[in-house]
Parts: sequence; structure tokens; C-alpha cells
Amino acid sequence: MQMRYKLAAALALAATTVSAQAQMKPEEVIQYRQGVFKAIRWNVAPMGAMVQGKMPFDQAAFLGKAQRLDQLAKMPWDGFGAGTDKGAPTRAKPEVWTDAAGFKKAADAFQAETPKLVAAAQSGNMDQIKAAFQGVIKTCDACHDNFRSK
Amino acid sequence: MQMRYKLAAALALAATTVSAQAQMKPEEVIQYRQGVFKAIRWNVAPMGAMVQGKMPFDQAAFLGKAQRLDQLAKMPWDGFGAGTDKGAPTRAKPEVWTDAAGFKKAADAFQAETPKLVAAAQSGNMDQIKAAFQGVIKTCDACHDNFRSK
Repeated sequence: MQMRYKLAAALALAATTVSAQAQMKPEEVIQYRQGVFKAIRWNVAPMGAMVQGKMPFDQAAFLGKAQRLDQLAKMPWDGFGAGTDKGAPTRAKPEVWTDAAGFKKAADAFQAETPKLVAAAQSGNMDQIKAAFQGVIKTCDACHDNFRSK
Repeated sequence: MQMRYKLAAALALAATTVSAQAQMKPEEVIQYRQGVFKAIRWNVAPMGAMVQGKMPFDQAAFLGKAQRLDQLAKMPWDGFGAGTDKGAPTRAKPEVWTDAAGFKKAADAFQAETPKLVAAAQSGNMDQIKAAFQGVIKTCDACHDNFRSK
């Protein structure tokens, strides 16, 4: 009985969670994930300018942006739930859902690189920063190539 | 001479920073801040549902959302630079810029509440969580009332 009760509770929880997520329209979910990616870009762009010497390197500013990127890198992925392949303009390819394992791998690869950029920014060593930044960008590109339309 | 050099360098830095920011069109800046607010809402909504008993309370999930909210709460404010009152549809009132001190105060009040919600979520005490959540929502509403159009 105890076992059955726990299972019933777990199922009820799952159903309620799904229903609570379902309260968000696909349009809102898509806008959420796109919003997070916009915030990611907002931080990546000036770091790129600093790495390329187009903007003076400011270690504190760079570190702040690297830390925000690292926080944001964890966020968009729960905005790709089932049924959110349409409902608003989106460049997400069907492969996000048809190759969920590959998409997760690409998302994980990105999240594995951002802490290295934070560490490099803390060191202040530009060679290390450049390498770590390129490591991040490589994972952005890899995911975009396979899972985002042009 | 040293003094003058430092000043020149500081001015050059300021000019370059402004120019680098200027590379982002007002439209992109507006979309950035709106994206962050969408991500804030994404986390606030399910916490609200849990606090109201519309969704089962899950301490780990709640804490995760509170932590993300606390991170995001620091982000939108540099997306309200001069000249970003138009360029894309925005509900930001002119007061954001005409009463910059008041807007900063409202933004700071919000950021002062979100760490309390994280602490409450860590405690797991629902009374403390409810109080902290209401504290957060009060600062959302106060800022929306004064600085966001209906």
C-alpha cells in the first residue's frame, strides 16, 4: 500500500508538473528560450570584441560577462519541451526533437566550456582567455550548425 | 603628463565602450532586456504556482528557480541605456529615463529581495518562502506600476 501510495503521488506530481508547464503556451516557451539566447549573445558579443582587440580588455567586465554567460548557459534547455517546435517563429530545426540525444550532447558541450572561460577570466591571462573563448564559440557553432536553421 | 595620459586613456576607454555598445541597435538592446524579463517570468510563474498550492511544492525545483531568478535579477538593467526608449515595441515608460534615480531605486529594491527568496528556499520553511516570495512580487509590481505601461 505504501508503495502504491508513493507511485500514485509520483504520478500525480508528474501530471501536475506537466499541466503547470502546459499553462505556458508554446509561443511563450519559444520566447523564453529565445530571450535567454539573446541574453547569451549580449554577453558573448563584448567578450568577443575584447578578445579580438576591438575593445580594450577590462578584466572585471570580462569576468562579469563570463559569469553571466555561465549562468545563462544552463537556462534555455528546458524551453525546448515537446510541442514547442512551432507556435512562434523559431529557427530550431526538427532535429532538436528527433535527435534529442544529440541535442543534449551539444547543449552539454557548451555548458562544459563556459566554466573554463570563467576560470580563464579570473586568471587574467589573455592566451588562456582566447583559448577558452574559442572553446565556447566552437560549441555555439556546432550546435547552431546542426540544430538551428540559417 | 602621467596624469594627462591616464585621463586620455580613461576617455578613450569610455569612448570605445560607448561605441561598442552602440554597435547594438536599440532594437537589439530592447530585445535583450525583454528576453531577460521573459526568463524572469519563466522562473517566477512556477514558484508562484507552488506558493499558491496550485502545483506541489518541490524544494529542489523551487530553490533552482529562486537561484536563477536571483542571477537574472541583476541582468536587465544595462539594457536600458540612453536611446533605447524606442526602436522596437516596448512598454518601458519615459520615466525610466526621466526619473533614472527612481528607476534605479526600484531595480535595486528587486535585487535586494531575490537573495532572501534563495535563503528561504534553502530553509524549506513555507511560511518564510511565502513571505520572501511576496517581498519579491511587491518589488516587481512597484516597478511595473511606475515604469511599465499597462
